[in-house]
Amino acid sequence: MQFDHAGVATDDADALAALYEAAFDAPVAHRETFDGLDVTFLDLGNGYFELLEPTPDAEGAIPRYLERNGPGLHHVALATDDIAAALDAAREAGIELIDEDPRPGAWGHEVAFCHPKSTGGVLLEFVQH
Amino acid sequence: MQFDHAGVATDDADALAALYEAAFDAPVAHRETFDGLDVTFLDLGNGYFELLEPTPDAEGAIPRYLERNGPGLHHVALATDDIAAALDAAREAGIELIDEDPRPGAWGHEVAFCHPKSTGGVLLEFVQH
Repeated sequence: MQFDHAGVATDDADALAALYEAAFDAPVAHRETFDGLDVTFLDLGNGYFELLEPTPDAEGAIPRYLERNGPGLHHVALATDDIAAALDAAREAGIELIDEDPRPGAWGHEVAFCHPKSTGGVLLEFVQH
Repeated sequence: MQFDHAGVATDDADALAALYEAAFDAPVAHRETFDGLDVTFLDLGNGYFELLEPTPDAEGAIPRYLERNGPGLHHVALATDDIAAALDAAREAGIELIDEDPRPGAWGHEVAFCHPKSTGGVLLEFVQH
């Protein structure tokens, strides 16, 4: 299990991508619209920032997060070569899963989220590329 | 600039370290008490979780964060070989700095924080090992 990305909820991904590239040398690696979100991955060499901007009138977790908390750090994702085994290990360790099974995520990845109430308040995602 | 760690505010670092090791294969790499915090680094191979638990009666940013928000994801840190140059690049990009100059952090690192109001709501730290 390795660090994969830090997920950031934003209402202006273009501006944030330009800022992070200028300040942190993190260029855009991939962009797509997925599940009501404009998703931008910025390359950190050993991982990514994932900027998440809702499309107009989108509903879901990120628009709700922005409404409640404003823009900011939303989740941390861990990369695994075997997401089914990762979910089994999490279950065995007593972690409650939001996604009992992997589901398709942006960039063609398989993803699954752990419930933050069982991980010390941290929203943790597993990602299999 | 690369990912260095995700900082997690917690009121029980022992329990969280045991859980993250069991669930995410992230063993303890380093522990120390620093500046009113019990600091635990968990090794992710390409970076760390940094668990931050206030010592009894400590004051500061992490106790305040826990009081306001409860346990959870507090910041993301980027590793650099030249923290002075990183601070210059951030300033030039228009980022407001909490620390205009690097200061000693845990594990013998030099660290400096950017103000989240200038980085899309994300508390970002620079770390030079």
